[in-house]
Amino acid sequence: MSAPQDVLLKLCETLEARKGADAKTSYVASLYAKGVDGIAKKIGEEAAETIIAAKNDDDQALIRELADLWFHSLVLMAHRGLTLQQLGEELARRSGTSGHAEKAARPQ
Amino acid sequence: MSAPQDVLLKLCETLEARKGADAKTSYVASLYAKGVDGIAKKIGEEAAETIIAAKNDDDQALIRELADLWFHSLVLMAHRGLTLQQLGEELARRSGTSGHAEKAARPQ
Amino acid sequence: MSAPQDVLLKLCETLEARKGADAKTSYVASLYAKGVDGIAKKIGEEAAETIIAAKNDDDQALIRELADLWFHSLVLMAHRGLTLQQLGEELARRSGTSGHAEKAARPQ
Amino acid sequence: MSAPQDVLLKLCETLEARKGADAKTSYVASLYAKGVDGIAKKIGEEAAETIIAAKNDDDQALIRELADLWFHSLVLMAHRGLTLQQLGEELARRSGTSGHAEKAARPQ
Repeated sequence: MSAPQDVLLKLCETLEARKGADAKTSYVASLYAKGVDGIAKKIGEEAAETIIAAKNDDDQALIRELADLWFHSLVLMAHRGLTLQQLGEELARRSGTSGHAEKAARPQ
Repeated sequence: MSAPQDVLLKLCETLEARKGADAKTSYVASLYAKGVDGIAKKIGEEAAETIIAAKNDDDQALIRELADLWFHSLVLMAHRGLTLQQLGEELARRSGTSGHAEKAARPQ
Repeated sequence: MSAPQDVLLKLCETLEARKGADAKTSYVASLYAKGVDGIAKKIGEEAAETIIAAKNDDDQALIRELADLWFHSLVLMAHRGLTLQQLGEELARRSGTSGHAEKAARPQ
Repeated sequence: MSAPQDVLLKLCETLEARKGADAKTSYVASLYAKGVDGIAKKIGEEAAETIIAAKNDDDQALIRELADLWFHSLVLMAHRGLTLQQLGEELARRSGTSGHAEKAARPQ
């Protein structure tokens, strides 16, 4: 198994674990405490920064903004009780993978 | 290996393959043809739709918007020649995985 | 009185008049029919296009995107029953005009 | 003359005057110092907050976010050397005012 995929699963576990954390010491817990408005605002901010970075030449800066955008997407999902599995199934439709093949590949 | 992660790798392969496709028949090729401005505009649109869906009750609608947001993020990355591996490494920093552990876990 | 300010008042009158228009023939009426989600989505789109235009050199293109952004802001305000007067009062606070001076200047 | 329109002109004058101000003591001067990226980022943030406020019930909060969005639009315009007059002319096209009528109404 390669790193990028493991990272997403691991990150989701971390975000789940932060649900019991103190908003004073955990950034993620502070986002949960702000609720949907606070998390959605961060998605708007990171999307704007991604667009700006897309217009600039610094590849690493763009990767950082995209990582921030995805990170806060995962925080929103965790807050709403949605899983990476659900997002993966929806993305699978966009890659032309048949629903049947996806279902067969799903872990039991 | 579970589905959601495989889906991202498969999607990246599909996006790479679309680089040789006809913009008249392939949506992704039509985005590449529009360049950074066209792709960045889509990221802004999908972020706005994600925020709106976050404020509504329909979980599946939110998943669809997040999938659109991530999909167009991957299109931007493919257009810029950036890889899922690079995004994964950046996300790993946010989950507290040490750079060394990440490097060791990377496929040879 | 100079043109730019008159234009905003005139535009607000037009937007108000469109509340009785047919969504099939009037763009503004079609936005009202879509409700807050449809109008808010347009604000997100136009903001993204403004950011992209801000990073490009074409002044006229930037003016067009800013006009689109303000236009859809006014549509949202009309839909919510908010007035240009209310927005002006809020903006006055940002320019350091005292609330009293503003009140005195208001038409009877 | 009524308040909301005067406010915009006055605000533009204030923004122009801030071009000589110290970024340490003036918020607007600090935005100019950050350049297009910093100002465009604020437009993205305020657009996201406007969308969120549009989905909530608090009218005054929505007015505040719209005022922030317009304020930072004006900062971007000032930074680029664009005028309220130019924005007004572009908006006039959207309100169906004929170009000729606008030209005649323009201050000499």
